[in-house]
Amino acid sequence: MKKYEIKRRVEYYEADTTQKLSLPMILNYAVLASKCQSDELGVGQDFHLGRGLGWIILQYEVIIKRRPKIGEIIRIQTFATQYNPFFVRRPFVFLDENDNEIIRVDSIWTMIDMTNRRMARLPQDIIDQYDAKRVKQISRIPNPEKFSDDDQYTERDYHVRYLDIDGNKHVNNSKYFEWMQDVIAPEYLLTHEITYINLKFENEIRLGHTILSQVVQNDNKSKHRIMMENVISAEAEFKWRKI
Amino acid sequence: MKKYEIKRRVEYYEADTTQKLSLPMILNYAVLASKCQSDELGVGQDFHLGRGLGWIILQYEVIIKRRPKIGEIIRIQTFATQYNPFFVRRPFVFLDENDNEIIRVDSIWTMIDMTNRRMARLPQDIIDQYDAKRVKQISRIPNPEKFSDDDQYTERDYHVRYLDIDGNKHVNNSKYFEWMQDVIAPEYLLTHEITYINLKFENEIRLGHTILSQVVQNDNKSKHRIMMENVISAEAEFKWRKI
Repeated sequence: MKKYEIKRRVEYYEADTTQKLSLPMILNYAVLASKCQSDELGVGQDFHLGRGLGWIILQYEVIIKRRPKIGEIIRIQTFATQYNPFFVRRPFVFLDENDNEIIRVDSIWTMIDMTNRRMARLPQDIIDQYDAKRVKQISRIPNPEKFSDDDQYTERDYHVRYLDIDGNKHVNNSKYFEWMQDVIAPEYLLTHEITYINLKFENEIRLGHTILSQVVQNDNKSKHRIMMENVISAEAEFKWRKI
Repeated sequence: MKKYEIKRRVEYYEADTTQKLSLPMILNYAVLASKCQSDELGVGQDFHLGRGLGWIILQYEVIIKRRPKIGEIIRIQTFATQYNPFFVRRPFVFLDENDNEIIRVDSIWTMIDMTNRRMARLPQDIIDQYDAKRVKQISRIPNPEKFSDDDQYTERDYHVRYLDIDGNKHVNNSKYFEWMQDVIAPEYLLTHEITYINLKFENEIRLGHTILSQVVQNDNKSKHRIMMENVISAEAEFKWRKI
Protein backbone atom coordinates (compact mmCIF):
# COMPACT_ATOMS: atom_id res chain seq x y z
CA MET A 1 0.00 0.00 0.00
CA LYS A 2 1.50 3.29 -1.06
CA LYS A 3 0.64 6.08 1.31
CA TYR A 4 0.57 9.66 0.11
CA GLU A 5 0.33 12.87 2.07
CA ILE A 6 -0.42 16.52 1.35
CA LYS A 7 -0.21 19.46 3.71
CA ARG A 8 -2.72 22.32 3.71
CA ARG A 9 -3.17 25.51 5.70
CA VAL A 10 -6.87 26.27 6.20
CA GLU A 11 -7.51 29.67 4.58
CA TYR A 12 -10.28 32.09 5.50
CA TYR A 13 -12.22 31.45 2.29
CA GLU A 14 -12.21 27.71 2.99
CA ALA A 15 -13.95 28.18 6.33
CA ASP A 16 -17.57 28.81 7.17
CA THR A 17 -18.94 31.31 9.65
CA THR A 18 -17.65 29.16 12.57
CA GLN A 19 -14.10 29.87 11.27
CA LYS A 20 -13.64 26.13 10.75
CA LEU A 21 -13.04 24.20 7.53
CA SER A 22 -16.33 24.03 5.63
CA LEU A 23 -17.95 20.69 4.78
CA PRO A 24 -17.39 21.01 1.02
CA MET A 25 -13.70 21.76 1.61
CA ILE A 26 -13.28 18.49 3.53
CA LEU A 27 -14.14 16.67 0.30
CA ASN A 28 -12.05 18.98 -1.84
CA TYR A 29 -8.96 18.39 0.30
CA ALA A 30 -9.49 14.63 0.17
CA VAL A 31 -9.92 14.53 -3.60
CA LEU A 32 -6.91 16.80 -4.00
CA ALA A 33 -4.78 14.33 -2.03
CA SER A 34 -5.85 11.46 -4.30
CA LYS A 35 -5.25 13.52 -7.44
CA CYS A 36 -1.76 14.43 -6.25
CA GLN A 37 -1.00 10.78 -5.55
CA SER A 38 -2.21 9.72 -9.00
CA ASP A 39 -0.09 12.43 -10.62
CA GLU A 40 2.96 11.32 -8.68
CA LEU A 41 2.41 7.70 -9.69
CA GLY A 42 2.24 8.75 -13.34
CA VAL A 43 -1.43 7.77 -13.74
CA GLY A 44 -3.04 11.18 -13.20
CA GLN A 45 -5.86 12.83 -15.07
CA ASP A 46 -4.04 13.36 -18.38
CA PHE A 47 -3.10 9.69 -18.40
CA HIS A 48 -6.54 8.14 -17.82
CA LEU A 49 -8.44 10.77 -19.82
CA GLY A 50 -6.06 9.91 -22.65
CA ARG A 51 -7.66 6.45 -22.56
CA GLY A 52 -11.16 7.87 -22.37
CA LEU A 53 -11.56 6.93 -18.71
CA GLY A 54 -12.41 9.03 -15.67
CA TRP A 55 -12.61 8.32 -11.94
CA ILE A 56 -15.88 8.94 -10.15
CA ILE A 57 -16.81 8.62 -6.52
CA LEU A 58 -19.85 6.53 -5.58
CA GLN A 59 -19.97 6.98 -1.84
CA TYR A 60 -18.36 8.88 1.00
CA GLU A 61 -18.32 8.24 4.70
CA VAL A 62 -16.90 11.04 6.85
CA ILE A 63 -16.20 10.86 10.57
CA ILE A 64 -15.49 14.26 12.05
CA LYS A 65 -13.92 14.53 15.47
CA ARG A 66 -12.97 18.15 15.03
CA ARG A 67 -12.95 20.52 12.06
CA PRO A 68 -9.68 22.51 11.85
CA LYS A 69 -9.72 26.30 12.26
CA ILE A 70 -8.45 29.03 9.93
CA GLY A 71 -4.66 29.09 10.02
CA GLU A 72 -4.26 25.48 11.18
CA ILE A 73 -1.90 23.34 9.17
CA ILE A 74 -3.19 19.86 8.59
CA ARG A 75 -1.97 16.82 6.70
CA ILE A 76 -4.21 14.59 4.61
CA GLN A 77 -2.98 11.04 4.12
CA THR A 78 -4.47 8.69 1.58
CA PHE A 79 -3.94 5.26 0.08
CA ALA A 80 -5.95 2.76 -1.93
CA THR A 81 -6.64 -0.20 0.34
CA GLN A 82 -8.67 -2.67 -1.70
CA TYR A 83 -9.76 -3.12 -5.28
CA ASN A 84 -11.61 -5.54 -7.49
CA PRO A 85 -12.15 -5.23 -11.25
CA PHE A 86 -14.67 -2.41 -10.76
CA PHE A 87 -14.19 -0.69 -7.45
CA VAL A 88 -11.51 0.84 -5.27
CA ARG A 89 -11.79 1.71 -1.63
CA ARG A 90 -9.75 4.70 -0.55
CA PRO A 91 -9.53 6.14 2.98
CA PHE A 92 -8.24 9.59 3.89
CA VAL A 93 -6.93 10.55 7.31
CA PHE A 94 -6.74 14.21 8.35
CA LEU A 95 -4.11 14.88 11.01
CA ASP A 96 -3.54 18.05 12.99
CA GLU A 97 -0.17 19.50 14.00
CA ASN A 98 -0.06 17.21 17.04
CA ASP A 99 -0.62 14.12 14.86
CA ASN A 100 -4.15 13.69 16.15
CA GLU A 101 -6.63 12.21 13.71
CA ILE A 102 -9.34 14.85 13.40
CA ILE A 103 -11.27 13.68 10.32
CA ARG A 104 -11.49 10.34 8.56
CA VAL A 105 -13.02 9.95 5.13
CA ASP A 106 -13.70 6.64 3.45
CA SER A 107 -14.70 6.43 -0.19
CA ILE A 108 -15.63 4.04 -2.98
CA TRP A 109 -14.41 4.88 -6.48
CA THR A 110 -15.03 3.47 -9.90
CA MET A 111 -14.00 4.37 -13.43
CA ILE A 112 -16.33 5.37 -16.21
CA ASP A 113 -16.05 5.52 -19.96
CA MET A 114 -16.10 9.27 -20.62
CA THR A 115 -18.07 8.99 -23.85
CA ASN A 116 -21.08 6.99 -22.64
CA ARG A 117 -20.62 7.63 -18.87
CA ARG A 118 -20.95 3.87 -18.17
CA MET A 119 -18.90 2.01 -15.61
CA ALA A 120 -15.66 0.60 -16.98
CA ARG A 121 -13.30 -2.13 -15.83
CA LEU A 122 -10.28 -0.71 -13.99
CA PRO A 123 -7.19 -1.07 -16.21
CA GLN A 124 -4.69 -3.32 -14.44
CA ASP A 125 -1.67 -1.15 -15.26
CA ILE A 126 -3.34 1.86 -13.62
CA ILE A 127 -4.55 0.03 -10.53
CA ASP A 128 -1.18 -1.72 -10.10
CA GLN A 129 0.47 1.63 -9.40
CA TYR A 130 -1.40 2.10 -6.13
CA ASP A 131 -0.28 -1.17 -4.63
CA ALA A 132 -3.72 -1.96 -3.20
CA LYS A 133 -4.94 -5.38 -2.16
CA ARG A 134 -6.94 -7.30 -4.74
CA VAL A 135 -10.11 -8.70 -3.19
CA LYS A 136 -13.20 -10.46 -4.46
CA GLN A 137 -15.56 -8.00 -2.91
CA ILE A 138 -14.45 -4.72 -1.45
CA SER A 139 -15.85 -4.07 2.00
CA ARG A 140 -18.96 -1.95 1.70
CA ILE A 141 -19.88 1.31 3.34
CA PRO A 142 -23.42 0.90 4.78
CA ASN A 143 -26.15 2.68 2.82
CA PRO A 144 -27.49 5.90 4.25
CA GLU A 145 -30.95 5.48 5.75
CA LYS A 146 -33.68 6.12 3.18
CA PHE A 147 -36.67 8.46 3.50
CA SER A 148 -39.78 6.59 4.57
CA ASP A 149 -43.22 7.32 3.18
CA ASP A 150 -44.43 9.14 6.24
CA ASP A 151 -41.32 11.28 6.70
CA GLN A 152 -42.14 14.97 6.83
CA TYR A 153 -39.39 16.65 4.87
CA THR A 154 -38.62 20.27 4.18
CA GLU A 155 -37.05 21.22 0.89
CA ARG A 156 -35.47 24.08 -1.01
CA ASP A 157 -34.65 24.33 -4.70
CA TYR A 158 -31.15 25.10 -5.97
CA HIS A 159 -30.39 26.15 -9.50
CA VAL A 160 -27.17 24.48 -10.68
CA ARG A 161 -24.75 27.39 -11.16
CA TYR A 162 -22.01 27.92 -13.70
CA LEU A 163 -19.41 27.69 -10.91
CA ASP A 164 -20.85 24.41 -9.60
CA ILE A 165 -19.40 22.75 -12.69
CA ASP A 166 -15.74 21.82 -12.51
CA GLY A 167 -13.04 21.24 -15.10
CA ASN A 168 -14.51 17.78 -15.77
CA LYS A 169 -17.77 19.43 -16.93
CA HIS A 170 -19.68 17.96 -13.99
CA VAL A 171 -21.02 19.22 -10.73
CA ASN A 172 -18.21 19.25 -8.19
CA ASN A 173 -19.09 16.56 -5.61
CA SER A 174 -18.57 18.99 -2.78
CA LYS A 175 -21.61 21.03 -3.92
CA TYR A 176 -23.90 18.24 -2.68
CA PHE A 177 -22.61 18.93 0.82
CA GLU A 178 -23.45 22.61 0.38
CA TRP A 179 -27.01 21.90 -0.87
CA MET A 180 -27.61 19.41 1.93
CA GLN A 181 -26.27 21.64 4.66
CA ASP A 182 -27.91 24.84 3.42
CA VAL A 183 -31.44 23.47 3.71
CA ILE A 184 -31.00 23.19 7.48
CA ALA A 185 -31.94 26.28 9.51
CA PRO A 186 -28.94 28.51 10.37
CA GLU A 187 -30.08 28.47 14.03
CA TYR A 188 -29.52 24.71 14.07
CA LEU A 189 -26.20 24.89 12.19
CA LEU A 190 -24.85 27.51 14.59
CA THR A 191 -25.70 25.42 17.66
CA HIS A 192 -24.73 21.98 16.37
CA GLU A 193 -21.52 20.49 15.10
CA ILE A 194 -21.48 17.79 12.46
CA THR A 195 -19.90 14.48 13.48
CA TYR A 196 -20.76 12.07 10.65
CA ILE A 197 -21.71 12.07 6.97
CA ASN A 198 -22.63 9.12 4.78
CA LEU A 199 -23.37 10.22 1.22
CA LYS A 200 -24.18 8.01 -1.73
CA PHE A 201 -24.37 9.33 -5.29
CA GLU A 202 -27.03 7.87 -7.54
CA ASN A 203 -27.44 10.02 -10.65
CA GLU A 204 -25.39 12.83 -12.14
CA ILE A 205 -26.62 16.40 -12.29
CA ARG A 206 -25.93 18.76 -15.17
CA LEU A 207 -25.61 22.52 -15.54
CA GLY A 208 -28.85 24.45 -15.90
CA HIS A 209 -31.01 22.02 -13.95
CA THR A 210 -32.72 22.93 -10.74
CA ILE A 211 -32.42 20.40 -7.94
CA LEU A 212 -34.39 19.98 -4.74
CA SER A 213 -32.53 19.50 -1.49
CA GLN A 214 -34.81 17.66 0.95
CA VAL A 215 -34.19 17.03 4.61
CA VAL A 216 -35.81 15.16 7.48
CA GLN A 217 -34.44 16.20 10.87
CA ASN A 218 -34.64 14.12 14.00
CA ASP A 219 -32.78 15.17 17.13
CA ASN A 220 -29.15 14.68 16.33
CA LYS A 221 -29.68 13.11 12.91
CA SER A 222 -30.69 14.39 9.50
CA LYS A 223 -31.57 12.42 6.39
CA HIS A 224 -30.99 14.10 3.03
CA ARG A 225 -32.03 13.63 -0.54
CA ILE A 226 -31.09 15.55 -3.67
CA MET A 227 -33.83 15.20 -6.30
CA MET A 228 -33.62 16.10 -9.96
CA GLU A 229 -36.90 15.81 -11.84
CA ASN A 230 -38.26 13.20 -9.39
CA VAL A 231 -35.14 11.08 -9.63
CA ILE A 232 -32.87 10.63 -6.61
CA SER A 233 -29.49 12.09 -7.38
CA ALA A 234 -27.94 11.47 -3.97
CA GLU A 235 -28.92 10.29 -0.49
CA ALA A 236 -27.19 11.01 2.76
CA GLU A 237 -27.30 10.73 6.49
CA PHE A 238 -25.70 13.35 8.76
CA LYS A 239 -25.15 13.15 12.51
CA TRP A 240 -24.79 16.17 14.77
CA ARG A 241 -23.96 17.02 18.35
CA LYS A 242 -25.14 20.03 20.31
CA ILE A 243 -22.38 22.56 20.97
CA MET B 1 6.20 50.93 0.76
CA LYS B 2 6.40 47.43 2.13
CA LYS B 3 5.78 44.81 -0.52
CA TYR B 4 4.46 41.40 0.45
CA GLU B 5 4.15 38.25 -1.61
CA ILE B 6 2.36 34.92 -1.35
CA LYS B 7 2.66 31.90 -3.60
CA ARG B 8 -0.32 29.72 -4.58
CA ARG B 9 -0.81 26.65 -6.73
CA VAL B 10 -4.18 26.77 -8.50
CA GLU B 11 -6.13 23.70 -7.34
CA TYR B 12 -8.91 21.95 -9.26
CA TYR B 13 -11.62 23.17 -6.88
CA GLU B 14 -10.48 26.76 -7.36
CA ALA B 15 -11.03 26.58 -11.12
CA ASP B 16 -14.19 26.81 -13.18
CA THR B 17 -15.20 24.59 -16.08
CA THR B 18 -12.51 26.24 -18.29
CA GLN B 19 -9.90 24.78 -15.88
CA LYS B 20 -8.75 28.31 -15.08
CA LEU B 21 -8.86 30.19 -11.76
CA SER B 22 -12.47 31.21 -11.08
CA LEU B 23 -13.44 34.88 -10.70
CA PRO B 24 -14.28 34.58 -6.98
CA MET B 25 -10.90 32.95 -6.33
CA ILE B 26 -9.08 35.95 -7.84
CA LEU B 27 -10.53 38.05 -5.03
CA ASN B 28 -9.91 35.41 -2.41
CA TYR B 29 -6.22 35.14 -3.34
CA ALA B 30 -5.86 38.94 -3.24
CA VAL B 31 -7.52 39.31 0.15
CA LEU B 32 -5.44 36.39 1.48
CA ALA B 33 -2.25 38.22 0.45
CA SER B 34 -3.32 41.34 2.32
CA LYS B 35 -4.34 39.33 5.39
CA CYS B 36 -0.96 37.58 5.43
CA GLN B 37 0.82 40.92 5.19
CA SER B 38 -1.18 42.38 8.06
CA ASP B 39 -0.45 39.31 10.19
CA GLU B 40 3.26 39.60 9.43
CA LEU B 41 3.25 43.29 10.36
CA GLY B 42 1.61 42.47 13.69
CA VAL B 43 -1.63 44.28 12.86
CA GLY B 44 -3.72 41.34 11.68
CA GLN B 45 -7.32 40.48 12.40
CA ASP B 46 -6.91 39.70 16.12
CA PHE B 47 -5.18 43.04 16.60
CA HIS B 48 -7.77 45.31 14.94
CA LEU B 49 -10.79 43.29 16.07
CA GLY B 50 -9.37 43.70 19.57
CA ARG B 51 -9.99 47.41 19.10
CA GLY B 52 -13.45 46.86 17.68
CA LEU B 53 -12.35 47.72 14.15
CA GLY B 54 -12.59 45.75 10.90
CA TRP B 55 -11.34 46.35 7.35
CA ILE B 56 -13.86 46.42 4.55
CA ILE B 57 -13.38 46.82 0.82
CA LEU B 58 -15.34 49.50 -0.98
CA GLN B 59 -14.28 48.95 -4.57
CA TYR B 60 -12.28 46.60 -6.77
CA GLU B 61 -10.85 47.06 -10.22
CA VAL B 62 -9.49 43.92 -11.88
CA ILE B 63 -7.53 43.77 -15.12
CA ILE B 64 -7.19 40.24 -16.43
CA LYS B 65 -4.66 39.46 -19.12
CA ARG B 66 -4.78 35.72 -18.54
CA ARG B 67 -6.35 33.54 -15.84
CA PRO B 68 -3.92 30.86 -14.60
CA LYS B 69 -4.72 27.17 -15.17
CA ILE B 70 -5.01 24.33 -12.67
CA GLY B 71 -1.53 23.36 -11.47
CA GLU B 72 0.09 26.71 -12.26
CA ILE B 73 2.05 28.31 -9.47
CA ILE B 74 1.50 32.02 -9.20
CA ARG B 75 2.69 34.76 -6.89
CA ILE B 76 0.48 37.54 -5.60
CA GLN B 77 2.27 40.72 -4.58
CA THR B 78 0.60 43.46 -2.60
CA PHE B 79 1.40 46.73 -0.87
CA ALA B 80 -0.55 49.71 0.46
CA THR B 81 0.30 52.67 -1.80
CA GLN B 82 -1.66 55.63 -0.45
CA TYR B 83 -3.76 56.48 2.56
CA ASN B 84 -5.62 59.36 4.12
CA PRO B 85 -7.47 59.35 7.45
CA PHE B 86 -10.27 57.18 6.02
CA PHE B 87 -9.10 55.24 2.97
CA VAL B 88 -6.29 53.03 1.79
CA ARG B 89 -5.51 52.12 -1.78
CA ARG B 90 -4.00 48.68 -2.23
CA PRO B 91 -2.93 47.08 -5.53
CA PHE B 92 -2.27 43.39 -6.11
CA VAL B 93 -0.12 42.00 -8.90
CA PHE B 94 -0.48 38.36 -9.96
CA LEU B 95 2.68 36.98 -11.61
CA ASP B 96 3.12 33.67 -13.40
CA GLU B 97 6.18 31.41 -13.27
CA ASN B 98 7.87 33.49 -15.98
CA ASP B 99 7.35 36.71 -14.00
CA ASN B 100 4.68 37.91 -16.38
CA GLU B 101 1.94 40.03 -14.88
CA ILE B 102 -1.27 38.14 -15.63
CA ILE B 103 -3.80 39.85 -13.34
CA ARG B 104 -3.80 43.24 -11.63
CA VAL B 105 -6.28 44.12 -8.90
CA ASP B 106 -6.68 47.57 -7.41
CA SER B 107 -8.78 48.17 -4.33
CA ILE B 108 -10.00 50.82 -1.91
CA TRP B 109 -10.30 49.87 1.76
CA THR B 110 -11.69 51.51 4.82
CA MET B 111 -12.17 50.55 8.46
CA ILE B 112 -15.48 50.24 10.25
CA ASP B 113 -16.52 50.20 13.84
CA MET B 114 -17.68 46.59 14.30
CA THR B 115 -20.51 47.47 16.68
CA ASN B 116 -22.37 50.06 14.61
CA ARG B 117 -20.83 49.17 11.18
CA ARG B 118 -20.00 52.87 10.56
CA MET B 119 -16.81 54.09 8.94
CA ALA B 120 -14.00 54.73 11.38
CA ARG B 121 -10.81 56.78 11.25
CA LEU B 122 -7.76 54.62 10.47
CA PRO B 123 -5.63 54.33 13.63
CA GLN B 124 -2.23 55.87 12.89
CA ASP B 125 -0.27 53.06 14.59
CA ILE B 126 -1.93 50.48 12.35
CA ILE B 127 -1.54 52.41 9.11
CA ASP B 128 2.07 53.29 9.92
CA GLN B 129 3.04 49.63 9.68
CA TYR B 130 2.34 49.47 5.95
CA ASP B 131 4.66 52.34 5.07
CA ALA B 132 2.18 53.82 2.59
CA LYS B 133 2.23 57.41 1.35
CA ARG B 134 -0.01 59.85 3.18
CA VAL B 135 -2.04 61.90 0.71
CA LYS B 136 -4.88 64.39 0.94
CA GLN B 137 -7.09 62.47 -1.43
CA ILE B 138 -6.34 58.99 -2.56
CA SER B 139 -6.58 58.56 -6.31
CA ARG B 140 -10.04 57.23 -7.19
CA ILE B 141 -11.09 54.20 -9.16
CA PRO B 142 -13.71 55.38 -11.69
CA ASN B 143 -17.29 54.39 -10.86
CA PRO B 144 -18.78 51.51 -12.80
CA GLU B 145 -21.34 52.68 -15.36
CA LYS B 146 -24.86 52.81 -13.90
CA PHE B 147 -28.01 51.24 -15.31
CA SER B 148 -30.04 53.77 -17.28
CA ASP B 149 -33.83 53.94 -17.17
CA ASP B 150 -34.32 52.31 -20.53
CA ASP B 151 -31.83 49.49 -20.00
CA GLN B 152 -33.41 46.10 -20.58
CA TYR B 153 -31.99 43.88 -17.88
CA THR B 154 -32.36 40.22 -17.13
CA GLU B 155 -32.29 39.05 -13.54
CA ARG B 156 -32.17 35.99 -11.34
CA ASP B 157 -32.71 35.70 -7.63
CA TYR B 158 -30.16 34.18 -5.26
CA HIS B 159 -30.91 33.13 -1.74
CA VAL B 160 -27.97 34.03 0.53
CA ARG B 161 -26.64 30.67 1.68
CA TYR B 162 -25.12 29.59 4.96
CA LEU B 163 -21.75 29.08 3.25
CA ASP B 164 -21.83 32.56 1.65
CA ILE B 165 -21.17 33.95 5.13
CA ASP B 166 -17.57 33.99 6.24
CA GLY B 167 -15.85 34.02 9.62
CA ASN B 168 -16.61 37.76 9.89
CA LYS B 169 -20.34 36.98 9.81
CA HIS B 170 -20.76 38.73 6.46
CA VAL B 171 -21.16 37.68 2.89
CA ASN B 172 -17.74 36.88 1.46
CA ASN B 173 -17.02 39.59 -1.16
CA SER B 174 -16.16 36.99 -3.74
CA LYS B 175 -19.79 35.77 -3.78
CA TYR B 176 -20.80 38.97 -5.60
CA PHE B 177 -18.62 37.86 -8.49
CA GLU B 178 -20.40 34.51 -8.52
CA TRP B 179 -23.89 36.06 -8.53
CA MET B 180 -22.89 38.54 -11.25
CA GLN B 181 -21.29 35.93 -13.47
CA ASP B 182 -23.96 33.28 -12.99
CA VAL B 183 -26.76 35.42 -14.39
CA ILE B 184 -25.00 35.44 -17.78
CA ALA B 185 -25.89 32.58 -20.14
CA PRO B 186 -23.40 29.65 -20.04
CA GLU B 187 -23.18 29.82 -23.85
CA TYR B 188 -21.77 33.33 -23.53
CA LEU B 189 -19.43 32.44 -20.65
CA LEU B 190 -18.00 29.48 -22.57
CA THR B 191 -17.23 31.60 -25.65
CA HIS B 192 -15.97 34.76 -23.95
CA GLU B 193 -13.12 35.48 -21.60
CA ILE B 194 -13.34 38.21 -18.98
CA THR B 195 -10.77 41.02 -19.27
CA TYR B 196 -11.95 43.67 -16.80
CA ILE B 197 -14.08 44.04 -13.67
CA ASN B 198 -14.94 47.21 -11.79
CA LEU B 199 -17.09 46.47 -8.74
CA LYS B 200 -18.31 48.93 -6.16
CA PHE B 201 -20.01 47.84 -2.94
CA GLU B 202 -22.85 50.00 -1.66
CA ASN B 203 -24.78 48.15 1.04
CA GLU B 204 -24.10 45.00 2.99
CA ILE B 205 -26.11 41.81 2.57
CA ARG B 206 -27.03 39.49 5.42
CA LEU B 207 -27.75 35.78 5.71
CA GLY B 208 -31.27 34.70 4.87
CA HIS B 209 -32.00 37.48 2.41
CA THR B 210 -32.69 36.86 -1.23
CA ILE B 211 -30.85 39.13 -3.64
CA LEU B 212 -31.48 39.88 -7.29
CA SER B 213 -28.55 39.76 -9.70
CA GLN B 214 -29.38 41.99 -12.68
CA VAL B 215 -27.41 42.29 -15.90
CA VAL B 216 -27.47 44.37 -19.07
CA GLN B 217 -25.31 42.89 -21.81
CA ASN B 218 -23.93 44.83 -24.74
CA ASP B 219 -21.42 43.25 -27.11
CA ASN B 220 -18.27 42.89 -25.07
CA LYS B 221 -19.56 44.68 -21.99
CA SER B 222 -21.93 43.82 -19.18
CA LYS B 223 -23.32 46.07 -16.48
CA HIS B 224 -24.34 44.44 -13.21
CA ARG B 225 -26.37 45.29 -10.18
CA ILE B 226 -27.05 43.35 -6.99
CA MET B 227 -30.33 44.44 -5.44
CA MET B 228 -31.60 43.66 -1.98
CA GLU B 229 -35.18 44.79 -1.31
CA ASN B 230 -34.97 47.55 -3.96
CA VAL B 231 -31.71 48.90 -2.58
CA ILE B 232 -28.52 48.67 -4.63
CA SER B 233 -26.03 46.47 -2.81
CA ALA B 234 -23.31 46.57 -5.47
CA GLU B 235 -22.75 47.79 -9.01
CA ALA B 236 -20.23 46.55 -11.51
CA GLU B 237 -19.01 46.70 -15.04
CA PHE B 238 -17.40 43.68 -16.74
CA LYS B 239 -15.58 43.59 -20.08
CA TRP B 240 -15.19 40.48 -22.23
CA ARG B 241 -13.42 39.30 -25.34
CA LYS B 242 -14.55 36.61 -27.71
CA ILE B 243 -12.40 33.46 -27.51
